[in-house]
Parts: sequence; C-alpha cells; structure tokens
Amino acid sequence: MSTTKEPTEQMEQPRSDEVQLPNSERIYVEGASAGVRVPFREVALNATRHPDGTLEENPCVRVYDTSGAWGDPAVTCDEREGLAPLRRDWIIERGDVEEYAGREVKPEDDGYLTAGAVEYAQQKTKGRLEYFPGLRRAPLRARAGARVTQMHYARRGMVTPEMEFIALRENMGREAALHAMASHTRDDRSSLYHEHRGDSLGAAIPEFVTPEFVRDEVARGRAIIPANVNHPEAEPMIIGRNFLVKINANIGNSAVASSIEEEVEKMRWSTKWGADTVMDLSTGKNIHATREWILRNSPVPIGTVPIYQALEKVGGKAEELTWEIYRDTLIEQAEQGVDYFTIHAGVRLPYIPLTAKRTTGIVSRGGSIMAKWCLAHHEESFLYTRFRDICEIMSAYDVSFSLGDGLRPGSIADANDEAQFAELDTLGELTKIAWEHDCQTMIEGPGHVPLHLIKENMDRQLETCGEAPFYTLGPLTTDIAPGYDHITSAIGAAMIGWYGTAMLCYVTPKEHLGLPDKKDVKEGVIAYKIAAHAADLAKGHPGAQLRDNALSKARFEFRWEDQFNLSLDPEVAREYHDETLPQEGAKLAHFCSMCGPHFCSMKITQEVRDFAAKKELEESAALEAGMREKAAEFVATGAEIYQGTLPEGATREH
Amino acid sequence: MSTTKEPTEQMEQPRSDEVQLPNSERIYVEGASAGVRVPFREVALNATRHPDGTLEENPCVRVYDTSGAWGDPAVTCDEREGLAPLRRDWIIERGDVEEYAGREVKPEDDGYLTAGAVEYAQQKTKGRLEYFPGLRRAPLRARAGARVTQMHYARRGMVTPEMEFIALRENMGREAALHAMASHTRDDRSSLYHEHRGDSLGAAIPEFVTPEFVRDEVARGRAIIPANVNHPEAEPMIIGRNFLVKINANIGNSAVASSIEEEVEKMRWSTKWGADTVMDLSTGKNIHATREWILRNSPVPIGTVPIYQALEKVGGKAEELTWEIYRDTLIEQAEQGVDYFTIHAGVRLPYIPLTAKRTTGIVSRGGSIMAKWCLAHHEESFLYTRFRDICEIMSAYDVSFSLGDGLRPGSIADANDEAQFAELDTLGELTKIAWEHDCQTMIEGPGHVPLHLIKENMDRQLETCGEAPFYTLGPLTTDIAPGYDHITSAIGAAMIGWYGTAMLCYVTPKEHLGLPDKKDVKEGVIAYKIAAHAADLAKGHPGAQLRDNALSKARFEFRWEDQFNLSLDPEVAREYHDETLPQEGAKLAHFCSMCGPHFCSMKITQEVRDFAAKKELEESAALEAGMREKAAEFVATGAEIYQGTLPEGATREH
Repeated sequence: MSTTKEPTEQMEQPRSDEVQLPNSERIYVEGASAGVRVPFREVALNATRHPDGTLEENPCVRVYDTSGAWGDPAVTCDEREGLAPLRRDWIIERGDVEEYAGREVKPEDDGYLTAGAVEYAQQKTKGRLEYFPGLRRAPLRARAGARVTQMHYARRGMVTPEMEFIALRENMGREAALHAMASHTRDDRSSLYHEHRGDSLGAAIPEFVTPEFVRDEVARGRAIIPANVNHPEAEPMIIGRNFLVKINANIGNSAVASSIEEEVEKMRWSTKWGADTVMDLSTGKNIHATREWILRNSPVPIGTVPIYQALEKVGGKAEELTWEIYRDTLIEQAEQGVDYFTIHAGVRLPYIPLTAKRTTGIVSRGGSIMAKWCLAHHEESFLYTRFRDICEIMSAYDVSFSLGDGLRPGSIADANDEAQFAELDTLGELTKIAWEHDCQTMIEGPGHVPLHLIKENMDRQLETCGEAPFYTLGPLTTDIAPGYDHITSAIGAAMIGWYGTAMLCYVTPKEHLGLPDKKDVKEGVIAYKIAAHAADLAKGHPGAQLRDNALSKARFEFRWEDQFNLSLDPEVAREYHDETLPQEGAKLAHFCSMCGPHFCSMKITQEVRDFAAKKELEESAALEAGMREKAAEFVATGAEIYQGTLPEGATREH
Repeated sequence: MSTTKEPTEQMEQPRSDEVQLPNSERIYVEGASAGVRVPFREVALNATRHPDGTLEENPCVRVYDTSGAWGDPAVTCDEREGLAPLRRDWIIERGDVEEYAGREVKPEDDGYLTAGAVEYAQQKTKGRLEYFPGLRRAPLRARAGARVTQMHYARRGMVTPEMEFIALRENMGREAALHAMASHTRDDRSSLYHEHRGDSLGAAIPEFVTPEFVRDEVARGRAIIPANVNHPEAEPMIIGRNFLVKINANIGNSAVASSIEEEVEKMRWSTKWGADTVMDLSTGKNIHATREWILRNSPVPIGTVPIYQALEKVGGKAEELTWEIYRDTLIEQAEQGVDYFTIHAGVRLPYIPLTAKRTTGIVSRGGSIMAKWCLAHHEESFLYTRFRDICEIMSAYDVSFSLGDGLRPGSIADANDEAQFAELDTLGELTKIAWEHDCQTMIEGPGHVPLHLIKENMDRQLETCGEAPFYTLGPLTTDIAPGYDHITSAIGAAMIGWYGTAMLCYVTPKEHLGLPDKKDVKEGVIAYKIAAHAADLAKGHPGAQLRDNALSKARFEFRWEDQFNLSLDPEVAREYHDETLPQEGAKLAHFCSMCGPHFCSMKITQEVRDFAAKKELEESAALEAGMREKAAEFVATGAEIYQGTLPEGATREH
C-alpha cells in the first residue's frame, strides 16, 4: 500500500486500530457447524450499590459487532495480507464451484486508457498504485449449470453455515434475555428485561431467529445474504425486514481526492462504528486496485456501482458504453468478490421524459449515465434488455442485486412523482426475473421525501417488489439544511426503517457539498445507527431494548462510566461530560459522595418502591394510611428526592 | 454587565454580532395598526443563466426572523440599554393596566441567603453581579378586577396589534406566493411554487393567516401568544397547532458554570439561529439579575421554571418550600416580564407511587422537587391546591401557563406509562380551570418515547387538554446515544411536530452529560429548526416549501452561493464545500466553465423539457417519433446528461 502519499486533513482522526472501545471484550459464540464463530462485543458494567450497602451485579451487555478481526485485540491483522478467508471452506465444501484463471487485470481497469500508459507506469513506480500483494488464490465461479446463491440453497432446503451464523448473530443475547424476562412482570419497567411490544406494521419478526427461519426468509426473497464466493473474508450478515435494521456507509475516492490507504482506513473506520455493509463508490484512478485492497481487508459485504468503472473505461463518455464493456466490468468485479451490485436497470427510455418537469431532474449518477445512453442511442437501456444475462453472472458468483433507483427524487418537490413510481414498477418486474434465476435481490429507494409521503414509498415497494428488502438513502425530509443532511435524513431513515426498510444507506454532513472524510464517515454512521436502532425498538425486535434499559439504569444510578461505555460513541460521551466535570472523582464516585448530603436518588426510589409494594390496599386508602407515617420519617432522614448535584440542564430536566 | 469574567471555552464561538448571515437583508412589513412592523430576512439570489444565454431573475426568499433588533444592521443595540419596548404603547393604550412600585429586590432573589451577605457584597464589588442599569420604568399589572391576557381580549372579540403582527409574520411571503402559484399547474415540479398538499392529520391550517384567525385560535385556547405586559421588548409570536411549528432553546447558568454575560450571549446566539422562545433555567447564583439582563435584551418570549428560584430561596430544601415563597417568586418574575412559567401542578400525591416500578423514576427536576415536598408533608401539592390563586397572578400580567410534565418518562422503558398519563389527565383538568380565568395555556410533553408510541402522546394530549398547544421535549427515540441526543430527539421531534405539537423544546448534544455551551446551543437550534421545518412541510403549511424549492433549484443549477445562503447554516455549508474546492472560481463559475466540455445539466434538462412539451402525442408514439431525431443531435452536441464535475459523492448520488 502507498506510503508516500501525504496525509490529508481527514487523517487527523485517530487510526481505527488506535481506538479501543472501553470496557469491552470480544467474544465468540460457536455454532454447530465447523467454523461458525459469531463475534460480539460485550460491555462489562459496574455493580449497583444499593442504599443498604449491598452490591448487585449488572449483566454484561452484548452488542452486534461489525468490526471483524480488526476489532479483536487477540488477532494480529496485516493490511498487506488481508483477513482470513473464514467462509472459504464452506464454499468449497458445497462442491459447486470451480477455480479458474480469471480475467487479466488491465491498465484501463484502474482508469489508465491508452493515453495514460506513462502515468500508469509512474504511479506504480511511485508506489501510489500497488496491487494487493496478499492474494494467492484464483477466483471461483459456479460450475457449468450450477447456481451458487444463498437463495438457491435456501430454496432447495439447505441450511448453510452462513445461515446458521446469521441466526446466532441476530439473536444476540435474545434467548438468555427472554428467559430472564419470563421471571419479570410486563409492567415492571425497573426490570432490565422490560420491553415494549412494538408495532412491526405487518412484519413477521420471530421471538427467536433460527437457522431455519433465516433459510425460509431467503428462500422467499424477503431477505438477502450478500456473500460473493470470492469474498470469503466477509462475516455473514442478512438484510431483510424481519431482521435487525442494517446500515450502509459509502466510501470511495474521487478524481481529485483520497488514496488507496485512506479508503481502506475509511472502510475499517466505518465498520468500527457499526456499518453493516460498505459501498465503494470510487470514481477516480486506481479503482480496481483500491477495491481489491478494500475487499481483502473487509469483514463486511462490499457493494459497488459497476457502471462507474465501465464509464471510466470509455473515457467518461456515456454514449460509448456497450454491453460488452459493462459485462466485462461485472465479471471483473465479481471475480474480485464484490457482494452486491447497484444496477439501474429500471431507467427505461419511456420514463426519461417524465423527469422533464422536475425541480431537480435526474440526480442519480448511474441513472443519468443510463438516461444519457438511452437518449443518445434512442434505444432501451442494455441493463434492461440484457437483464437475464446479468442474472446469469450474478448467480455464478452469488452477487446480490441492488436494483438502483436511478429516477429517485433529488428534492422535496420531486418526491413520489410519476417517474419515480414508474421505475419502481419496473424494479418489481425485474425482481421476479432475478428470482427466477435464484438471484438475491434488494431494491433501492429514495432520496428526498417529506415526512407525510414516506410511508407511501414503503407500501408501494412492498407491494410492487414482493417484499424484497428495501434499501433507502435516508430519505432527507427537507432540502434546507446542507451541512446537516445526516440529521435531515436520519429523521426519514428512522421512520422508513420502522415502516419496513431493511437497510439504510447513510448520508454524511458533507452530502451535496463534498467528499466525506473520516470525521464525516463517523458522523454519518452514528446518525444511522441511531435511526436503525430507533426503528428496531419501534418494530419490537425482541432484545433490542436491553441496551437502552442498561444505559438508562446506569444513568439513574449515576454509574457514569457505564453510561459512557454503553453509548454508541463512548469517546464523545465522556468528552462532553468532562468538559464541565473533568475530575476523575466525578465519574468514580458512588452515589453518596456524588449527590451531596441531602440526596440519594436510589434511596428515595427504594422508599417509594417499598411504600408501593407494602400497600396492596385500595389506592387512595393506601395513600391515606401510608403517606402520613412516611412523611415524618422522610423529613427526619434528610428528605430529598431525585434532584442532585448534576451538571444543570443535564439529566434532571426542568 | 460583568467584564471581569475570564472568557471560558464556550466563548470561542464568534459573538452573535460578529456573524452576519450572507446576502441577506432585514425588511419590515407594516401592518395597519401603529407600530406593527414585522421583521423578515430576505435572502437575495443570483439569476439563472439559461442555455441560450438569457438570464432569469430568481425571487428573494423571505425567511421568518427571530433575531429582533440584534439582527438589524441599521439598529444600534446596547446591552446596557436593552431593546426598545415596541409593545409598550399597545399595552398602555388598552387602558387596563396600572404602574405600581413593585416588589423590592432582595439578596435571596440572587441566591444569597443570610449567610451569603458577605459574598453578595463581594460579587457586587467585583462587578460579577451588576443589576441591569437600563430599566427606568415601573412594573405594570392589571387594574383591580381586570384581566390583561391575549385570551381575554380574543374572547371579547378584540383583535390586538399583537394578533395583527402575528398574522403578517406567519404569512411570510405566502400571499404573494399563492398568487404566483395560481399561474402554475400543480404537477409542474420545476416551478418554484410547486407544493405538496401535506397531511395535517386533523389540524385546521388556513390558506392565509388573518388577524381574525389568530384571534379565534387564541380565544378557543388552541394557540397562545406569550406576551407579559412587562416584556414589551418581545416581538409577538404564536404557539399553536395551526401555525408554524416553533422551537425553544434552553439556556441558564448553574452553580458552577457560566456568567451573566455568557447567558445573555447564549440568548442572542440561539435567537440568531432561529429559537422562537428561550427558557432561562438558571439555578446558580444571580438568578434574578441574569434574568433581568436576558429579558431586557430578548426579542423573543422568555420562559422560566419558578420553582427553581423558589428552591434557592429555601437553601435547596424542598420540604421547606411554602406557597408564600412560591407566590412571591411568581410575582417577582411576572414583574420582570417572564412570558411563560413552567408549573408542575400535575404532580399529585397519588401519582408518586406510580413511579415506583420505573427504570428512571422521576427525571423532571421540578417534578422531583414537588414529589419530595408531597412526601415530606403528606399533602397534596400546593401548586395543585392553589391553582386558582396562581391563575389570578397569571392573568394580571399575562403570563402563559406551560403546564409541566413532572412525571414524564426519562427512558424508553418508562414511555407512556400510568404515571405519565395520570398526570396528563390532571393537566387537562387544570387547562380548563386556567381557561376559566382567561389564562393562556400550553402543555408540556415528553421526553423519551420509542417511535411507535409517539402518536399516542399527541392523540391523548389533544383529547385530554382540549387542543391546548402541546410543547414537547424531543422526544428522544432511543437511550443509547448520549453525545448525540440532538439527533435521537430531532427524529421524535419531527414526528410529533407533524402529528400536531406546536412547539419543540430543543435538546443539545450535551443532554445528560453537561451544561450546553454556545456550540451546543447552535447544534441544538439547527437540529430543531430541521425538525420543525420537516413538520411544517408534512403538515402542508402553505408556502413552507418555497425555501426547499429555491434551494433545490439553486443546487440543480450549480448556483453554489445561493445554495449556501439558503441553508439554515450558510457558514457550515460553505466551509464543508470549501474543504475540497476552496477556489473562489468553483463557487462563482457559471455552469459552462463549471461543468467541463461535455456537460451542461441545464441544457440537457432543457432538451428533455422541449422534447416532452413538443410531443403532445400518445406517449410511445412520441418516443418513437422524437427520440430518433433527438439521438443524432444529442451525440453531435457532446451528449452528456446531468452528471458533471461535482465533488464526488456529492449532489449526484449513485
């Protein structure tokens, strides 16, 4: 990897491996099948000290972990070697793939056309373009006549190790938690195991996720497992309405900014903070090489938009694109191991005039490339006419479709218009064709949509696309806040996640303004983890509320360290706290020293609880009887309830 | 004002008067009544340059402006003088108030009890406690037997100058815009005047806001105009479901942090970015003096929680609070001009045991103070038993009620529980009593609520409280992101705003962690302007979409400067853009130099439009006929559509 590149501003953030999430341990849950070891992060908590001085342990909180081996301090990773190919044996053992020589890498794969031969040589000499040195295996593809997709296996009744892995991963601590829940009454909100029922709006979320449930959801097309046979480094994960809501982070270089090194680091950075998949949207030079470095080091599925690279191969002139060049690019990327392709096959010739009266025309880059091609040739898009050929390629490597919404609205004004829904209808048709080929398929969605029009997007998508997973960009709920579009869109993302979207594509604060740097990537990921988790809570995913409960309990008991450590971003939580109360004592103190002479919130809570428990009489009688005796005692003991010496404006709101 | 105080970290932000919003002009719209001059900010835009070289003007965008005289470069303001008392004549002319000597200010009003006499003297000597020097008038109150509330006037059929002011203010550019809209077809989304119909979910939003409409809404209690007769400096504004959604910013010092100067600056800072009201939640020393400085300089209504100051007067011991001390505090603050009081009169004795099984007990500071008082005395809260006495005070100064939700949930687990809704029922009773006294009343709401339980809060509030305006804190939609609670809560705020909440109380990134500084105040205000505006769009407020349309049009036409200037935060939008493209040329260039030799998005858009307009034939025939001739021409002219030389990952999404 390049080491000569000057560090740019975005490298000011610490490197991923310099940041350790506090009080956390990497654990693995082993499955029945060989090699199924599911990683989690467990956050250890301090004990609760009761008013009578007794201590009560607080159970660890188990957290879904997307950081892969990079997040395991026991594993030494080397970017030049790449991650271990954990799925390799499973793939080989299924006996339906073959190794082959693969396509030869050409200078134009990295953006150096005939005229760029000298630059190509220079870049290699200077070390700015170094091919990934660690790969020593040939690509795999399906044997002739075979299909190697998870959907294919699922439909034949096979439960793959990938499915088993996912079942364990999605369950998190759910089984243990539900067991514990059984011993608590539903309305006891002081229990860690309290949980709202949620309103899944028609989803079919099970109490436990079993491998068989995973298989069934994949078989019927309601979920996908992006898992190219050439990306064995990735840990299995699932995208579907009946599973936890996932998020995607976009990275990628541009013609003017960033290096291979920076993009690999952005991938690690985004998965450290919780990105479930990463899209490499590079459009500058060294596209092929950058992607290879990313794939070999990525523990999560990688998505791309192959038309971007195809366009580079024709010098940026859309009208010169051909099916052959596009096909060559699909195979190139499938051999590298890309797990899903965005393909804008729904941008059909007749839909282009429907964008004429829009405020913002066509804002999808892929969509506009294809629109231009269609207008230039006056022909139907080759993505549409060759769709079955594309399916054959996808099923030979198990690349999942992400059917692109090239005509999505680029402004509030254009939301839910004719062009958008015409394209969605076509995506529905194409989904059925993809399914005929056992291809895993998800559908991309908008974009910019005001709150009251969001649900229509979900409802139509469910109906049109046979419940194939929806994958939306936001949506942004207003256009007036460039610089804050992670927020304008997190609002829409949370809502559409609740309504049923399976994966939310993040938006960073730089959206519409520039290429996101590491700081922006983190801001985007955190905002979207919030949106996805808010949606999980609303849908009533069993176990989703455990982390909220544990954090709230820590907050109420003034276990500051635990509150920080359970946050999506422990670092920032601690930093903000320390701005006003930097002393270590403020965090380590137990409630007594913390809350001053008059105050112990837990003691008061205990008194209220004792009182309520003892008085099983009729409500008003209880008060009459109990309060009077309580009153005197209360005054005698210092008489304080709940308000303390917190930083004002903080926990105790007005 | 103190000048000896060392500047703290939070003063790193520029002072409010050092920040000018770009390309903006302060304008005033004059009403029929004397002194009615409604301020707006008008953002001037560059012209659109069409592909044929012609220029087309873009109309100014008129923006609701909360910054008062501080935001008018033509006015010289002096913090030591305070703002001009613009409502003073209106109040006097109504002939129902009297000047009187008023209550004497005592050391304990600023937190110096008997033991603090020496410190009190020292603070004054050192200039850390300086009483506001600019006030030379005596307080006003209703003449004996009179009520001076806007609700009282409204019910008697009077349209006050305040109502007239508000009608003009809420209309913004609406009348002109609607006139222009009439000449455009509804589905022409390229028109600046396109507007989605919205879904107001049962609200009664008029096409135009007339003074009579304002009067009627106030008379029936569906809206309030917080406007104490002793705060004539404030510009009239309205809080109600059928008006634009408002936001409140909380400021205030604490026992350990901040000075008078900093708090006045936070008030100006928050109104500069769009806070519609400000609550002074000070709990440290110098509460009275700080409030006076804020009030005399505030162009927006100021709210407080009087129990905080009352508690300071009894040395922080809740059980020593009495009705007399509380009453004295209400009068003290009413004489100063506080426009609304949070009063937790719904925390009744029987409800306290209902919090026993909660995860986070009672998290409202005011709520916990009263709960403690009730337990200590085993008596019903004096806020409840003396409620009619309180009403008499409120109606004598026109202080609005903000009935506090002292039992709101402090965690996801506790959302929508029995304690919360029991209190809400009481707030409904109290609303009716307040209305009997012609007191303006709004109701405070939660808090922490998962997405699927938000709507129940709104529905119950509307039903229980007779459509009195709802004023919610967020709600936060998950507990797992301390450090990012402006985002967790902006999600809930946007939704409940759409559902009908009239004012959203902001949450800053410091929530639960520390006292917000200026940076946090701005982050909170911007996040809440986003939420409020997203709600306005969804409700279908006529004219609300104009700014989105203008910004999106600017974006599509590569008018970068206009895009920045129309943003809620022009400064940040520009800064993010300039991180990758700092050259002035990148912002000033017209599309031709900007988009490279192959590309002109507007030209292509024009071609698509011409094509669509000319072919009024049947759809497929049109394509057959037109596309072929178009194709050749298109290739000949350079054949590019929409994608250009933007920063990648920016406007043109994948």
